[in-house]
Amino acid sequence: MSRPTPLSGFPEWPPSQRLIEQNVLDHVRRTFELYGFAPLETRAVEPVDELLRKGETSKEIYLLRRLQADEPEDAGEALGLHFDLTVPFARYVRENAGKLTFPFRRYQIQKVWRGERPQEGRYREFRQADIDVVDRDTLAVHYDYELPIVAAEALAGLPIPAVVIHTSNRKLAQGFYQGLGIADPPAVLRIVDKLDKIGPARVVAELVDAVGLTDAQAKACLALAEIATDDASFADAVRRLGVDDPLLDEGLAELSAVMDAASALAPGLLKADLSIARGLDYYTGTVYEAKMRGFEKAGTVVAGGRYDNLAESGADRFPGTGISIGVSRILGLLFGAGVLSVSRQVPACVLVAVVAEERRAESDAVAAALRRRGIATEVAPAAARYGRQIRHADRRGIPYVWFPGEPGAPGEVKDIRSGDQAAADPATWEPPAEDRDPRVQGADPAG
Amino acid sequence: MSRPTPLSGFPEWPPSQRLIEQNVLDHVRRTFELYGFAPLETRAVEPVDELLRKGETSKEIYLLRRLQADEPEDAGEALGLHFDLTVPFARYVRENAGKLTFPFRRYQIQKVWRGERPQEGRYREFRQADIDVVDRDTLAVHYDYELPIVAAEALAGLPIPAVVIHTSNRKLAQGFYQGLGIADPPAVLRIVDKLDKIGPARVVAELVDAVGLTDAQAKACLALAEIATDDASFADAVRRLGVDDPLLDEGLAELSAVMDAASALAPGLLKADLSIARGLDYYTGTVYEAKMRGFEKAGTVVAGGRYDNLAESGADRFPGTGISIGVSRILGLLFGAGVLSVSRQVPACVLVAVVAEERRAESDAVAAALRRRGIATEVAPAAARYGRQIRHADRRGIPYVWFPGEPGAPGEVKDIRSGDQAAADPATWEPPAEDRDPRVQGADPAG
Repeated sequence: MSRPTPLSGFPEWPPSQRLIEQNVLDHVRRTFELYGFAPLETRAVEPVDELLRKGETSKEIYLLRRLQADEPEDAGEALGLHFDLTVPFARYVRENAGKLTFPFRRYQIQKVWRGERPQEGRYREFRQADIDVVDRDTLAVHYDYELPIVAAEALAGLPIPAVVIHTSNRKLAQGFYQGLGIADPPAVLRIVDKLDKIGPARVVAELVDAVGLTDAQAKACLALAEIATDDASFADAVRRLGVDDPLLDEGLAELSAVMDAASALAPGLLKADLSIARGLDYYTGTVYEAKMRGFEKAGTVVAGGRYDNLAESGADRFPGTGISIGVSRILGLLFGAGVLSVSRQVPACVLVAVVAEERRAESDAVAAALRRRGIATEVAPAAARYGRQIRHADRRGIPYVWFPGEPGAPGEVKDIRSGDQAAADPATWEPPAEDRDPRVQGADPAG
Repeated sequence: MSRPTPLSGFPEWPPSQRLIEQNVLDHVRRTFELYGFAPLETRAVEPVDELLRKGETSKEIYLLRRLQADEPEDAGEALGLHFDLTVPFARYVRENAGKLTFPFRRYQIQKVWRGERPQEGRYREFRQADIDVVDRDTLAVHYDYELPIVAAEALAGLPIPAVVIHTSNRKLAQGFYQGLGIADPPAVLRIVDKLDKIGPARVVAELVDAVGLTDAQAKACLALAEIATDDASFADAVRRLGVDDPLLDEGLAELSAVMDAASALAPGLLKADLSIARGLDYYTGTVYEAKMRGFEKAGTVVAGGRYDNLAESGADRFPGTGISIGVSRILGLLFGAGVLSVSRQVPACVLVAVVAEERRAESDAVAAALRRRGIATEVAPAAARYGRQIRHADRRGIPYVWFPGEPGAPGEVKDIRSGDQAAADPATWEPPAEDRDPRVQGADPAG
């Protein structure tokens, strides 16, 4: 059989990069748990009609069918792979509302799938790390600032470039447009959302040509979108534009609350940026979006917002707010740039050499003693000459090689980086703390 | 929209059970890492022709197609969800052989999918935890005992019923059958594999009727299958059956090596059991299989074996051996029996009460101080009366409620289980070690 080749859009990282990913995921998960978010995992599949509640994403869905189905699948029962973690979560809340205690805070770290044409930094299979809070009937506004702070803190603790979360509020923009007398605010939002890509002149031109705004209206919309501040001072800038509307007031109050709290609790991690709109139509208030410093062109790596109407079930309403970290995209970009490294390719801190194949049990015993104290240890694959056994360790970045002593005599442990070698007892020997587990480090871009 | 209902075969566990699952996965992963296995994750999909290299499982595959594909999918490019982690791993090794260092030890903990009709303890989506070692050309026999010991240790450290790994060797059985002059050893294996289910009398009857064995041959096959010992003494029992064959000798030597090492390194965790055959046809030597004590009827929860021919690529051979822990099946059985519990439903150890909504920042500051020292903390959702805030903690099993003091005065922390309350400083207060994180416990079956 010929050698298989990679599938475009379905990344597979070698163990050294998977070590980095696990390290990142452990840190993100630990941060989520420190804030009391409970773990949840939903199944990978949803009924297609659940996935299509928002028609906009229909192109991206992978449908399933059984290779040898006994009968034709009933279209109403067709299953598809989830394309995000928010739609499944909203379904989960509606399905289990009677058993959950509200407000319900959960995190969810899973793969999602999209049948899109793959391109740089875009995958067909990728992992997201989401937190959401959902309540019954109404959801307090303080969650609008808590969630982006948690996400920003999770990322700030990692050896990756800065990820500042840009925040805006749908009510603010929509109220502003209403106050200007604009009939179709969503059409304006969609164009303003492209400011980054097409620039201010084309935004104004499209607002005039495609939505039929006056030049003054279009320029006011642009002026709003260009407001960006590190604190709550954006509100004064908005006021200076001279537009008045009750929904605008609501949006200003909500975004000010977010920025006030962020300035106090997580200075520098959030930014008010009124150009942020988010394409998906289920957001109803605060929205979030972030790019990674130095990788702005690669697009959004964190996104989210408040959805007051996503999880409705009969007369029950479950407003929510959530934020999603694009773990695969972040790591894919950093791996591509060669700016993340790990101190070794395997978990093992020690390789125990084997003196002779019939004495392997002695090496197994040394390894067992080290493992009992939490030191990851591998036993050499074969009783080859020592040079070869040391090379086995060296190739994997395992820092220590243990040579079992003759029966009754102590063994010795060698740091193969320095060459230092000393007698040691497997019941008490400790590696330096920094050698115990693989260490992940940010590095300057190669080359 | 009506309330959604569960999908049969796609389990979704509530956060309290997901906490238990994560605890189990963390322990299993940590054990794998202590033995130096490197992490690997393969994509969820494989080309269908990779999945069909073993035709036997073709009925179980879920195929993918894009909901709105631009052109009809080329059948040769059809993708399916993987149904185990061994076939994708063998493909990964062939694809990346040039970049890997051999012997290559990896663990892989992922979901797999099978389009089977769901039944008790059988899922369509479930998680497995696998370890494998693959080498180039030949693979040393000591891995045949290392892997089941690792899997057995991983499970022995959990609060679950005992899982003793039963071990046999394909060469031993095949050599024995050859020595008896039987023409179709695989046919015999398939029938002997059902000993548990159909009993000895029907095994003998089927061997005579379906395979055409003489009564003496059939009884000898049964006698072999009934040999089970806790150490290497099985070999004497086999010898007493008076059959002679070079392949039988090889099998006996390999299984004896496994049992000798297991008796020394992990007494009681492995058992030689010559009834074990394993249905899948890629195993070539040692095979493993385990049931969970008290849940024997629910079937196999650990399985694996040596596959010398699974990963071949042109002239290159990559013999391997591996073992797989059925994490979802184990937990599904224990959840169903109500024999696993967790000390709380959320990660939070502390709930910080909110005195008044306009003083929420004081509670946020207390929470931040606790989190900085690794104490998982949630802030109350609303400045309700304290009784209601305490009930919020009580419902989730959060053991401590923190009451911020008046500005300048110290706060107090209450253990809501005992009612004990004392002044405390968030910069120094420590919960008892057993309260820091949710604790998982085995429990007697309910009722």
